[in-house]
Formats: sequence, C-alpha cells, structure tokens
Amino acid sequence: MHFTIVSIFPEFFDSFLSCGLMAKAVEAGVVAVDRINPRDFATDKHHTVDDRPYGGGPGMVMGLPTLVTTLRSLPKPGRLLMLSPAGRPLTQEIAAELATEEALTLVCGRYEGIDARIFDLFDITPVSVGDFVLSGGESAAACLMESVSRLVPGFMGKEASADEESFASGLLEYPHYTRPEMFEGLPVPPDLLTGHHAAIAAWRRRRSLETTLHRRPDLFDATILSDEDLDFLRAVPRARPGRNMHIALVHGPVLLKDGKVGTVSLTNLDVHDIARVSRTYGLGGFEVVSPLRDQLTLAGRIVGHWREGPGLAANPDRAEALSLVRLHEDLDAALVAVGKDHGQPPALIATSARGPATMSFAAARELIGKRPVLVVLGTGHGLADAVLDRADGILPPLRPFSDYNHLSVRAAAGILTDRLLGDIL
Amino acid sequence: MHFTIVSIFPEFFDSFLSCGLMAKAVEAGVVAVDRINPRDFATDKHHTVDDRPYGGGPGMVMGLPTLVTTLRSLPKPGRLLMLSPAGRPLTQEIAAELATEEALTLVCGRYEGIDARIFDLFDITPVSVGDFVLSGGESAAACLMESVSRLVPGFMGKEASADEESFASGLLEYPHYTRPEMFEGLPVPPDLLTGHHAAIAAWRRRRSLETTLHRRPDLFDATILSDEDLDFLRAVPRARPGRNMHIALVHGPVLLKDGKVGTVSLTNLDVHDIARVSRTYGLGGFEVVSPLRDQLTLAGRIVGHWREGPGLAANPDRAEALSLVRLHEDLDAALVAVGKDHGQPPALIATSARGPATMSFAAARELIGKRPVLVVLGTGHGLADAVLDRADGILPPLRPFSDYNHLSVRAAAGILTDRLLGDIL
Repeated sequence: MHFTIVSIFPEFFDSFLSCGLMAKAVEAGVVAVDRINPRDFATDKHHTVDDRPYGGGPGMVMGLPTLVTTLRSLPKPGRLLMLSPAGRPLTQEIAAELATEEALTLVCGRYEGIDARIFDLFDITPVSVGDFVLSGGESAAACLMESVSRLVPGFMGKEASADEESFASGLLEYPHYTRPEMFEGLPVPPDLLTGHHAAIAAWRRRRSLETTLHRRPDLFDATILSDEDLDFLRAVPRARPGRNMHIALVHGPVLLKDGKVGTVSLTNLDVHDIARVSRTYGLGGFEVVSPLRDQLTLAGRIVGHWREGPGLAANPDRAEALSLVRLHEDLDAALVAVGKDHGQPPALIATSARGPATMSFAAARELIGKRPVLVVLGTGHGLADAVLDRADGILPPLRPFSDYNHLSVRAAAGILTDRLLGDIL
Repeated sequence: MHFTIVSIFPEFFDSFLSCGLMAKAVEAGVVAVDRINPRDFATDKHHTVDDRPYGGGPGMVMGLPTLVTTLRSLPKPGRLLMLSPAGRPLTQEIAAELATEEALTLVCGRYEGIDARIFDLFDITPVSVGDFVLSGGESAAACLMESVSRLVPGFMGKEASADEESFASGLLEYPHYTRPEMFEGLPVPPDLLTGHHAAIAAWRRRRSLETTLHRRPDLFDATILSDEDLDFLRAVPRARPGRNMHIALVHGPVLLKDGKVGTVSLTNLDVHDIARVSRTYGLGGFEVVSPLRDQLTLAGRIVGHWREGPGLAANPDRAEALSLVRLHEDLDAALVAVGKDHGQPPALIATSARGPATMSFAAARELIGKRPVLVVLGTGHGLADAVLDRADGILPPLRPFSDYNHLSVRAAAGILTDRLLGDIL
C-alpha cells in the first residue's frame, strides 16, 4: 500500500510512522508513505496556502492554486481522499475496501476548510472519522492509515487477529482476561478456564451480544442474530425507557375537514391497533381521550369485550394489549393519570403534520429516557392549536420532505413509536 | 486542561504535541500533557505489560498489575477515559462536555485489549472515535485530545471559529471559497460576492442542508428544521430509492390460527392504510394478493369507489394513495408485474415474526438502493413456509427482544417501511 499524505504539517506524522506496528510495516515495505507539503508549491515568498473566505466569517480557507499544483505533481496518487467532518463516516467495511487499493492519497485540510472547487477539479472522496471537529485532517488521517494498513496482508503477525475484533462480526468485541487468575479478589470468569472451545465461544458470543445491546444497539440493524442469540438477549436485564412513554389518542378538540375545531368519532380499529403497538413496544399505557360521554361508554364496551368478555377466551393476546387502554374525558385527565403512574407529571409531546416542529426525535428520545412523556396524536385532521400551544414540544412530521403526508393515525402511531424506541428501547 | 496519556508508546505523541495549534496551546499553558508508560511500572526485567488471553485466541492482552499501579500513581488523573472501538462514540457534544473537565486521563490500549477487570477497579469510560479497528488507542487519543483541546477557552485565536463548523448547528458545514474569484473556469458562487449578510447566511444554510441531505441524512434526526429549510429541502433533487420498493400483502397462502395453511379475507382498512403508507413513502406500488376471485372483485370495487367513483370527489388524497394498489391472484403475478415496471425481476424479501432472519434491515436497505424489491407481508398468522422458502431474504421481527409481537399488519407495514426508508429515502 502506497500512501501519499498531503499536509502542511508533514512532520506531524514523524512519530506516528516510527512507532510500533506502523514502523515495522514501513520497514518491511508493507506500506510506503510519501509526505508532500503544499507550501513547497507556493510561489510567493511567504509560502502562503490560505486566504480569507468569500462571504466573510472567521478563519482562513486553504486556496486552490498551490493545492492543485501539489495534487497534479503526485507520481502515484491512487484514490484521492480528503479528511473532513462533512465526509462519509469511516467504517471497518470502508477500511477493508480501501485496503485493497494500490495507492491512497490523503488530503489533510487545515483552517476552516479547503476551497470547495477542489471537488470540481479532482475526484476526491471526503471521509470523516467521527462527528467531531479537529483543527486539521492529520489526526484523522493517522486513524485512517492505521485502520487501513493493518488490513493490508503482511501487516499483522497473525492474520486471525484482525477477524475476531469489534465489527468483524457486526458486534462489539467480547472482554479479554489474562493472568493473574485472581487479582484483588476479582476472578477470571470461570467459563474461560474450562478449556472447552465451544463453551468459550458461546460465552464470548454472549458477552459480545450483551456489550452491543448496552452500548451500541444501533449495530443490530446490520446484524443477523440466531434464535439462540435472541433467546439470550431477551433474558438480559435492560433499561426499558419505553415504559416512560404513553400515547394519547385525542378525538377532540381536533381539526375537522373544514378547518373548524370539533370532535370526531372513535374508530374501533384505532383502539385495537394502537393498543397492540403499545404492548409490543412496552409502553406505559395508551390513553384514549374523547369529550363525548357516549363514545367513552362505547369504547369501554369494546375494550371490556376483549379484556373480560368473550374476546378474552378467543384471543388472550388481544386482552393483554387492550389492558393498556384507559379512557379519559380530556387531555388533563390523561395527564393526571399518567402523572399518578409515575409519581411525577409527564412532559407533553404533540405531533403535527403541519409544523413547524419545536422538538427533534433525538430530543424526545432523550426525554423518554429521563421522565414520563405523553405523546399526543390527533384523529381527524390533527390536533387543535389549543393542544399544540400547551405542548412541551412538537415533533416534526414523519416524512418532512414528502409532498404527501396522509398516514392513518394507526400507521402513524406505530411509526412514531418505532422512531422513538426502535427495536430495543 | 490537564491531559494524562497512559500508553506504551508515549513517543507516539512527540510530533502531535509539537505541531501547529496543539504546540501553541501547550506553550501557552492552555493544555498540559503528561505521558506515562505502564512499562515503567513493570517489575520484571523485560518490562512486560501483556500476556496471553484466557480462553485462547490470537494476540495478547494488556494485564492488570502494571496498569493498575500506573493508574494509582497518577497525581492528577481527573476523569478516566479508555480509547476502545467498543466504547461510546465520540461526538462534538461529548467533546464539549469533556472540555469542561479540569483533567482527563486517556488510557490507550494495545494488543487485543486490556484485562476487563480494569473496569471493576476504576471508573473508566470507554470512548470510540469510530466504527473501525486500530492497533492501539494512540491515534484515537490524538483525535480526542485535539477535538477537546480546541474547545478549551484560549485555544482558538477567534472563539467564533468553533461555532460555525460542522455539527455546531447539527448540520454539516457549508462549502468554503477563497481567491482567486475565477480558477480554471470555475467561479466562486455569486451569492458569496454580494456583500449582503442575510443573502450569504441563507446561501450557506441551504448548502449545509443540501450537503447533510446527501451525505448524512441521519443527522436530521437531532435537528429542528424551519419551514423555510423544509421548503428548500423538498425542492432539492434527490435519489428516491423508495420507488424500488413495492409491498405485497398476501392473503393466501398464509398461516391460520390453528397452524394450518389457508386463505384469509381481505380487510378494507388494510388496503387503505398500506396504500397511504405506500404513497407517503413514495413506494413503487402496493400489490394485494389473494387467490380468491370474489375477494379480488370486492377489492376492485372498494378501490374503484375511491379512485374513480364518489370517493374521488370526496377525498382526492385517498384516490392518489389507492392508485398504487394492484390486485393479483398469486405472488408470481405480483412479481411479474413489478418486474415489468422496472425492467428486471425484483428481489423477494419476506417478513416473519417467527424467525430466524436471513437478511438484516441494513442489507435490505442496500438492496433497495440498487434494484427493485418486493417486500412481502402476510395476513392471518404470517406467511406460509412456501413463501418464506422462496424468498431471497427474511427480515428479523420488528421487536426481536419483546416477548409480545402482535402488531396489526397495518402498523407493521408502516413501521417496516419507515425502518427501511426513514424520513428521507
């Protein structure tokens, strides 16, 4: 692998390249590293490479002329990458793909950035090592070079080592232990001492699953889990922030078709579907709100049929879902009931397809992790302003960039709950 | 800010600390860096810090005795962090939080990892700089130190500079331009030359939105967008991979309550709700499959009522959704129809709450980005084995760790579509 580093601080990499495995790889010829300083291509006496940004603002921007000359002078550029927080996030998969290239050039920006016309002049892929900002691309380039280099054949002493680490299986790595067997009263887990390969592999798989569940459940999105994995994970105690969330389905006051505020009738399947969502996602409860006494009586009969009546014997699963349903005359009554469940009043989060939003999904998720939250959905044409105005936050529409947003409240409740809690929370 | 780096390669940081802004910050006393080598605390003549892992496997593990002695010797450890790919991902928000600490100790692992009992002995937070594997924590520690240091007051020449960058607004940064105004035929965008602050700010906001849309739409999850932002984003041309996806709702062959295979009746609201999901998410189509001729006739009448009949005038939005519905006698007919739409046969992705899955959501998403895909949902108690067996992949259940998985097919279709396409695709 031939790396070319384009940086105004080529000396940044001196110790990186003379330490540990990188030094050995360079010595063994597994990787070769050229360093080029754009300053050497500047034609003015100060070797200027930066200038003030058009449109104003703080900081300096790396200009085109010297950088373009630099890049055109490279004898073996290979694929061009630029380290930038606005780039595609580096992953182990991308590192493996890059390790198959013959040559890579890493352009390290400095200052506020690089004149963007560089992307019109060269085929450069911006790559990010994470959602944080550095003063320049050098530290990020070191991460990229190290992660790619160790996947180049000949870099690692034992090839197997690269396969058993975090991300190789799509999961985080299992914990390691070494001598002494007992340290300050802490023993090595006995499974590791059995000498049974299968038992050790099973123990390590379970620890990987557990660590991933607690720290990076998002990684499961790209992983295939076996039935055995799932059985294990179901039994792992975990925080269930979903319990903090209650859905309220409001039938009035809501917007009617003509734009007026009023009350709409209850739909049997709304109650069933949202109760099933509530139970499947482990919510604290499902609060049905209607100002009409006879509608509440009707809802009570429907729910009673399944909870205690003939429906219970026919479909006990449905009874379990509908046991989460409570009926309220108005939103205040729902808030009081939820407050009593949790010993503190819930935050009120409204939903609206009309916008503008005042709370992101990430912020709502964080709130659910901390305190009870009542997420309010409107029937008819959506919640009345009276409800929106008193909410602690209004979530964005589910499909903000779509010109068509006419989901049923049944589907919207499911999607919203999944957005907030995903497959695990 | 006082950093202590615990590393068996303390010299790794020599040039990092003597380059650019880090060097200036050290010189100005804004940051102080101590480096400690655990080898110096080893008591054997080879200064050993690693040993073979219990349970076997390649590589070496950093042992406890010398590391524990090292950590206990630190005069000013502050908060303890360990760089590890299994850690919590570093973000700009976490960097800002860390920048408020008085002291941080960064433990750099080497080899396969560190004996996990270290976490029982010290309160150490594992931090990751990205989903890739390094040979040790040093390069990652450099990224962390740099991102944190530049948020320490006094590090940056102009404080404003740190606020206008990627992630400060929750979006990726806008592109920069500097002199010359014209370079090899490429002009600076004229908006930046107007001198009107509001116009420049609006241009930059739009470019930030656009870059984020194309490269990191996941960041919108944590962002509040104004109505103006949304109007702009709706008009930005974007790939719409959702068009490649069709949903098939199969009424037979499916599993019945008694475990036998058979056919279930069509539910009017299933057709409506899933059509509305299909239109809202911009799917290629919604294929309703029933082997019963009279059921298809009924479905045709329902759909016709809304598409051309009295329903069209009453609710044109519904007509638009139901225009995506097609009726088929069997899955093969649906596959042929979808194949004709796209000029190539679709991949067949099945769903099952029974498992085991053979395709992750991430893999299905990738497939949808490349070719037509028919995602099949079963009514009744789920798809029959005959359908599962011929599928190119079976997705995991939506709530794999829940003991209760009884969503209505209406809610499941919505959640599944949102999992695959999110708010943007």
